[in-house]
Amino acid sequence: MIDISDASHSNPLGFSGTRDMLQILRDGRPRTRTELAAITGLARSTVGLRVDALVRLGLVGAVSDAVSTGGRPSSQIALAASGRTVLGVDIGASHIRVALTDLTGRIVDEGGEAIAVSEGPIPVLTRVADLGKALLERSGRSADDLLAIGVGVPGPVEHSTGRPTNPPIMPGWDRFDVPGWLGEIFGVPVLVDNDVNIMALGERELAWPGVDDLIFVKVATGIGSGVISGGLLQRGDRGTAGDIGHVYVARGADVLCRCGNRGCLEAIASGSALARILGESGLATATGQDVVELVKRGNVDAIQAVRQAGRDIGEALTICVSLINPAVIVIGGSLAQAGEHLIAGAREIVYTRSMPIATEHLQITQSKAGPDAAILGASMLAIHHALSPERVEAMVTASTR
Amino acid sequence: MIDISDASHSNPLGFSGTRDMLQILRDGRPRTRTELAAITGLARSTVGLRVDALVRLGLVGAVSDAVSTGGRPSSQIALAASGRTVLGVDIGASHIRVALTDLTGRIVDEGGEAIAVSEGPIPVLTRVADLGKALLERSGRSADDLLAIGVGVPGPVEHSTGRPTNPPIMPGWDRFDVPGWLGEIFGVPVLVDNDVNIMALGERELAWPGVDDLIFVKVATGIGSGVISGGLLQRGDRGTAGDIGHVYVARGADVLCRCGNRGCLEAIASGSALARILGESGLATATGQDVVELVKRGNVDAIQAVRQAGRDIGEALTICVSLINPAVIVIGGSLAQAGEHLIAGAREIVYTRSMPIATEHLQITQSKAGPDAAILGASMLAIHHALSPERVEAMVTASTR
Repeated sequence: MIDISDASHSNPLGFSGTRDMLQILRDGRPRTRTELAAITGLARSTVGLRVDALVRLGLVGAVSDAVSTGGRPSSQIALAASGRTVLGVDIGASHIRVALTDLTGRIVDEGGEAIAVSEGPIPVLTRVADLGKALLERSGRSADDLLAIGVGVPGPVEHSTGRPTNPPIMPGWDRFDVPGWLGEIFGVPVLVDNDVNIMALGERELAWPGVDDLIFVKVATGIGSGVISGGLLQRGDRGTAGDIGHVYVARGADVLCRCGNRGCLEAIASGSALARILGESGLATATGQDVVELVKRGNVDAIQAVRQAGRDIGEALTICVSLINPAVIVIGGSLAQAGEHLIAGAREIVYTRSMPIATEHLQITQSKAGPDAAILGASMLAIHHALSPERVEAMVTASTR
Repeated sequence: MIDISDASHSNPLGFSGTRDMLQILRDGRPRTRTELAAITGLARSTVGLRVDALVRLGLVGAVSDAVSTGGRPSSQIALAASGRTVLGVDIGASHIRVALTDLTGRIVDEGGEAIAVSEGPIPVLTRVADLGKALLERSGRSADDLLAIGVGVPGPVEHSTGRPTNPPIMPGWDRFDVPGWLGEIFGVPVLVDNDVNIMALGERELAWPGVDDLIFVKVATGIGSGVISGGLLQRGDRGTAGDIGHVYVARGADVLCRCGNRGCLEAIASGSALARILGESGLATATGQDVVELVKRGNVDAIQAVRQAGRDIGEALTICVSLINPAVIVIGGSLAQAGEHLIAGAREIVYTRSMPIATEHLQITQSKAGPDAAILGASMLAIHHALSPERVEAMVTASTR
């Protein structure tokens, strides 16, 4: 595979043509037909035909030239952010959330409810579909306005098919055809990915748009991460990239993990692990949220436990830093709400153990997208697919038949 | 950055145009002008003009249709593997090696000599240039036939500029403009990368052409790795991706590393570390090569030491497996010549400690490219750049002025 995504805009012979006009307009800047012809190297007449096709599809539109120079106002073309729409779906262990967003990922409307993922795919996806239909209706959009649906689920997903594979906390979902089931109802492409992967996408979109190398670590009931390398979300060979919850940490050598192994990171440093550990020492901690509450109230034992969890996570992150050399590590998930203590522990180990050259410009920071990371990432997954050159081409072809 | 490299070949409206003809022909299969027109969606006349331009550049050529079906033989076009040439350069700690290769990476001729990289950039690059000129002359090629030069160096390289950055074993090379210096002499683009990165490229090219997720680990005087994720060689934010020699391994907590830190992997598991450890127990081991010789002669202490080094490397690799989910981990470098003992140790830990889903299809294997990995990777670095859509476009533009 050859990376041609950095293609130059200069294209005098129309020889490479590695970008089409919509890809150029996705930066949000309006351009005239003449500018588009100069950038693409296409004939003015060809540009006109393509702009017309994109306008018919609702993907671009004319903008009035507000700063007229006195002459005839030039007719500028720009991405029509609200010309079409996508749905972003966040399926968690015990909730679903669905958002209708515009083509830049801005949330237009949203809804959600409590439902356990363990109820199985049909009950959960039925509720997702109902919420999605209600959002479309409430915003006055027809099903024809919908371009794609992005879905995050709390388990590993086979990237090529969008099917969950052996998801530990999703009984009944193994190999279930999520894209097929939702696609049948909405008639659009459905992209499915692991929840932590889409949180990485969402966080990058919101807070780190220019960053090509980023790791998003979710610390909640379990621990997982999403890896963006060289500008692309990485799934790995079998879709398990970023699955750092079960790496070995010596301090936990004797602790049995729910996966059946011993010494897993998430068995000593996740929210549920801390709840268990603090509970054993007499505190009333049933969940990670209880731990967060104790920390916020200044309980020293809880603060120390969270800081140590940060150190344990830092142990694993040290190797991640050496291997991937990220510019940013974002720590999110419910336990990250325990303030700076978790991050301080991670920083302590990473900055002690890593080579200076790899940490000199490294930022380890709290999630800025917070609870919105997943829904935003799911929308971006749908938008990236819907506005890809291949999909746009297919839409244009279909519309001119 | 949007990945458009999987663009469909079907292009009825010429709307995406994400591949040009040379990119299509790089798979080695000959095609007729009619086929090229069908694949690209370009007019037959446009295809003709572009083929002519590529023929003039020596990048493609006509092939006779050997299996004529009886009618008029169709004139097929194919990549002209030996129409132009590149130089691949492998600069090691104590040697240089230069190869002249064709456009598929096949070595046409090569030369090399012993020279310490610590002599500094001018003496070393002068010898590289002399060897390169001699190879061009000996093969009857002119400087005009040369398209690009790929160079691997034993230290970190800033990807955007090709300059070594704080390379520990390359005194005098820090921020030296290697591309500018060699480019001045040969008048072609010069691509520079870390030696382990180019070994990963070379190994993939030779042995794993379809694999998108691969880690190449070099175990020699030091330890380092090259990471290919999602089909692309990853450099990370500052060019240090893959630098796993200095990750912390608990077994080495008391051992001082040459980097100044304690507990680094390479301080207990590299060839030089094993030579030191075995030397302290009375064996005559000055270098990693001595260790390899002892293993080959069946020395039990040496075999045990190499196996333990494999386990230590496996500790670090376990987290790499969780984070990247590679399909293949290749172990190369001089210590890998100690046979299966090193790999057996690594496998023992990785398969014990990793989640089954991440290791079910994982292969951990010895380098097939062996000592040729670097020179082959350096050539591929040059070829990928020279035949990229942007470079081909620039060449065509220049040739038609």
